[in-house]
Amino acid sequence: MTLVGGGPSGAPDFVREDGVLAFVDIAQVKLDSGVVLPRVRMAYETWGELNADGSNAVLIEHALTGDTHLTRGRAREHAPEIERTRAEAPGWCENLVGPGKVIDTEKYFVVAINMLGGCYGSTGPATPAPPSVDPAGKPWGPRFPFVTVRDGVRAEAAVADALGIRQWRLVMGGSMGGARALEWAATFPDRVRACGVIASCAASSAEQIAWGQAQSLALRQDPAFASGYYYDGEFPMAGLGLARRIAHITYRSAAELQTRFSRDPQPGESVLGTAVGDRGRYKVESYLDYQASKLADRFDANSYLTLNEALMSHDVARGRGTLREALAGTTCDWLVAAVDSDRLYYPYESDALCEALPGDVVRHTIHSDSGHDGFLIEDGQLGELVRQTVLRD
Amino acid sequence: MTLVGGGPSGAPDFVREDGVLAFVDIAQVKLDSGVVLPRVRMAYETWGELNADGSNAVLIEHALTGDTHLTRGRAREHAPEIERTRAEAPGWCENLVGPGKVIDTEKYFVVAINMLGGCYGSTGPATPAPPSVDPAGKPWGPRFPFVTVRDGVRAEAAVADALGIRQWRLVMGGSMGGARALEWAATFPDRVRACGVIASCAASSAEQIAWGQAQSLALRQDPAFASGYYYDGEFPMAGLGLARRIAHITYRSAAELQTRFSRDPQPGESVLGTAVGDRGRYKVESYLDYQASKLADRFDANSYLTLNEALMSHDVARGRGTLREALAGTTCDWLVAAVDSDRLYYPYESDALCEALPGDVVRHTIHSDSGHDGFLIEDGQLGELVRQTVLRD
Repeated sequence: MTLVGGGPSGAPDFVREDGVLAFVDIAQVKLDSGVVLPRVRMAYETWGELNADGSNAVLIEHALTGDTHLTRGRAREHAPEIERTRAEAPGWCENLVGPGKVIDTEKYFVVAINMLGGCYGSTGPATPAPPSVDPAGKPWGPRFPFVTVRDGVRAEAAVADALGIRQWRLVMGGSMGGARALEWAATFPDRVRACGVIASCAASSAEQIAWGQAQSLALRQDPAFASGYYYDGEFPMAGLGLARRIAHITYRSAAELQTRFSRDPQPGESVLGTAVGDRGRYKVESYLDYQASKLADRFDANSYLTLNEALMSHDVARGRGTLREALAGTTCDWLVAAVDSDRLYYPYESDALCEALPGDVVRHTIHSDSGHDGFLIEDGQLGELVRQTVLRD
Repeated sequence: MTLVGGGPSGAPDFVREDGVLAFVDIAQVKLDSGVVLPRVRMAYETWGELNADGSNAVLIEHALTGDTHLTRGRAREHAPEIERTRAEAPGWCENLVGPGKVIDTEKYFVVAINMLGGCYGSTGPATPAPPSVDPAGKPWGPRFPFVTVRDGVRAEAAVADALGIRQWRLVMGGSMGGARALEWAATFPDRVRACGVIASCAASSAEQIAWGQAQSLALRQDPAFASGYYYDGEFPMAGLGLARRIAHITYRSAAELQTRFSRDPQPGESVLGTAVGDRGRYKVESYLDYQASKLADRFDANSYLTLNEALMSHDVARGRGTLREALAGTTCDWLVAAVDSDRLYYPYESDALCEALPGDVVRHTIHSDSGHDGFLIEDGQLGELVRQTVLRD
């Protein structure tokens, strides 16, 4: 494994950079399925500096379609403009991570890693396959191995090794990020001092699997998907868009959708058409169309499938006995929090996790009317919980 | 309008038959969109006999993918075997309707009408279009007019006229059947003596519209759907199947799916595949596959679209002022009931209906762990509510 970090150029760079994509190359990752994935590149970003005893590193794990850009940073002085612009762009964790924020980048060395199989820099289905798989170097596509959340975490451990981080001060994430954080604590108990599992669960439920299947099928049934070999042709926008619509409805709450959209027609459109194939949209449909095209513009379809199915596979107890037994070796402090209106990761799933953890772990609540996405929206409440529990020092 | 009833042969038949499909032809129906739908045939079944003063007729309205066969019946003696077999087959309302049942066919004249646009005998997209639309007599397909729940009820009123029913003793239905029942009471207040709105609502919510859109797109995006012109080619099984999966998840509860399926793999299948395109199924996926193919084997895709979009259009107050104003003219007794675990038609939506109805209407509760489908599963509870409220005599 080699540290090649510093920027997309791949050239080493020892000047401090924040919020710039960097990479760790791993010779191979042995997966839960038994398959060995060769030539794995893991993408990450960092903010702040690792202290002398390596005790201030915080890992923030992104959710299904998230990326590594937590917050604005700074590229090295003579970096290409595109790199500087990207580094300085706001991130998805802007209110939690930064100088003086709860996760203070003046104090902590903050790391975000793109999940294995993703499309924000880490090796995934869109990555050229090695010659042993495709002599022409075409993308892996549907030949990309099935990865589990646990596989992803094992690859992330190689990033931690490369960065010289023996133990994380905190590993935290929401939704699939929470699943990743939990797997970190269970797989590497001595490498996690505190763990934050937000709006997540110990194992994907039957219902989460059912929604996952619907999303996978939405994508697979798009003829443009072409069984995953679409890189030379049309992108399966419609299929990925439908997968996102299904997911997005589960991410919000009925009450929020009702308050925002009610039954209003999209301005200028008539919802009572003259024929079944010819009617205007309701506002909520237009909103979901927007969510769909926004994702399809930025996300690889095979990566969506890969991460979606990884999330379906999430079960921290797989091969480890009961849930209680699987978590018995964990030694970290915990922040387990659920969004009260979440109807994808129900609060009772967080309760079940707390009950199985060693010691007395209470389940915290994030109040939101928005459903699951409340874990992103209510970052003020989440920050306060982090301050009160896992980052008290 | 002509009464041609008696059986698929279309020949008049004055011997009493129960549970046999019969038809009423209507010259035209003027739709909410302004479009005039010509040559409408409405299919229905009946059980029992209309009494002398026409006061014992009960209309049971089916849900989105339901049909008119409420319970077993009896064809005329010399009917073709297929007709006799069909008549004697059990129906979907077997425990509520029949001799000695709560809706006693010895006492009541029970009627079920296939919704306009459906595929169980009434005119719908699969019906040959009239020569003015298609000189070759091909099916309407996507040219079939957009119909609302209210349009459907107006066409049903013609069936009531043909049967000599001036006022229904009771109109009742669950889910979309409840929407149809409510529209009956609001559109024809003097023709409804009692109304049962079960697991339904006054107007489809933003979330219900959102799920409806996902289902429509699942179907439309199937290349076999061919913009609705698939009657000469392959049937869009995959698209209709995905629509059904999405719907079915919303019809059940997370708790029920978890209890029945948990994370179990389908026997003989490995859920951790070797590649993303190659993995076995979870049991819950196999269950949804079964639900999908079962529906796709029996339902027309364009009818699904037509009724799904009709349900999205459901708003008893459309063009009638506030909900309270829309319902102010209703004079019937009410049974409004919600399933406590329903997460598609939430109990608070039934509460909102009760609050808007004239007089003091209480919302009843059907206890079920199964979610929305509890209105079908818990027919014992529903029967008891019917007995206690709208059919006390």
